[in-house]
Amino acid sequence: MLNSFSISKFLDETASNSPVPGGGSVSALAASLGAALASMVCRLTIGKNTNVNVQNELKSILIKSERLRAKFTALIDEDTNAFKKVIAASRLPKENSDQNAQRAAAIQEAYKEAAVVPLHLLESCAEAVELLKIVGEKGNKNSLSDAGVAILMLGAACEGAAMNVRINLAVITDVSFVEANKILTNSLQVSISNSAQQTLFRINERLFSY
Amino acid sequence: MLNSFSISKFLDETASNSPVPGGGSVSALAASLGAALASMVCRLTIGKNTNVNVQNELKSILIKSERLRAKFTALIDEDTNAFKKVIAASRLPKENSDQNAQRAAAIQEAYKEAAVVPLHLLESCAEAVELLKIVGEKGNKNSLSDAGVAILMLGAACEGAAMNVRINLAVITDVSFVEANKILTNSLQVSISNSAQQTLFRINERLFSY
Repeated sequence: MLNSFSISKFLDETASNSPVPGGGSVSALAASLGAALASMVCRLTIGKNTNVNVQNELKSILIKSERLRAKFTALIDEDTNAFKKVIAASRLPKENSDQNAQRAAAIQEAYKEAAVVPLHLLESCAEAVELLKIVGEKGNKNSLSDAGVAILMLGAACEGAAMNVRINLAVITDVSFVEANKILTNSLQVSISNSAQQTLFRINERLFSY
Repeated sequence: MLNSFSISKFLDETASNSPVPGGGSVSALAASLGAALASMVCRLTIGKNTNVNVQNELKSILIKSERLRAKFTALIDEDTNAFKKVIAASRLPKENSDQNAQRAAAIQEAYKEAAVVPLHLLESCAEAVELLKIVGEKGNKNSLSDAGVAILMLGAACEGAAMNVRINLAVITDVSFVEANKILTNSLQVSISNSAQQTLFRINERLFSY
């Protein structure tokens, strides 16, 4: 489990000449950091805001952001495992046409899984940025910059995930799979990016009153 | 040392109701992840590119990106420590006017340090995005999306750091310190953001030929 690695070790493993963990797992970690900061801002607001409605709203967001954090953290490993399956499939024997066909099919299946993992990351990022909209609006002003960094991490995770979906789709031959997931990826990327920018603007407005 | 924490523990500590580690340390971690990915792409290129000039160029970039990674990782702790000093200064006794003056001066000093830490992060991000320009251009095409995620992490780290400089500058009374660092922050943020966008565009161009 990569999340049991120390930060130092994870960084060393990332920097090494092994392709995993790579950008996919790093994107999932960035999203985990974003969700963790969202949870922190909720906790730092719940105890301090005297408005019971705000308290209850942020308590319910906290439950959701912790659930998303668990999903994001699981995706750190899922991305690395999906990439390992692509490598394993490409090492299958190719000594005759049967083996060639089996190997080609296994590679295609592995690439599909490698595309689906960052797509799940995108879907959960979309949920997380919706939560941040409320956290950015109602969160404790003293920890608002943390909500800002949360949005930045989720925004970067989304862009990284979209790139990772696309590089896998580029080698998948199942046209309907590719088309459906291209449309889904584009649509999620645009909506996450818009929502993140709006929330970041609002946070800066509350922080610096411009 | 926060980098000896497991990823799980770091995420739990971030998500907790303690303000540290917060957005500043998370931004430094994002930059560390960016530098680690840059190093990985260098290593995956050096062994495979047959052009000796490219090999030598990326060997020299690898040395620099590993040096920057160490700086970024140190800043994870420095940010948390700087914030703790602000808290410690605000808890100094304030029972008479002498103590009040000493406390006010200590708080100002602590805020200055808390502004300088993310400023150092910005300065190192500026160096890192320059390295990524070459990595994005000459890096192994198979790990180019990792260079893309590296840029995204550095871009998010830069925006987070700039926000953290500004929230500290907002409470510093030394006008010349504030003005000088505001100008420096704006200028670093704009140049990093432009450079990151150009490199990301170029990486997408190489990956997807559009």
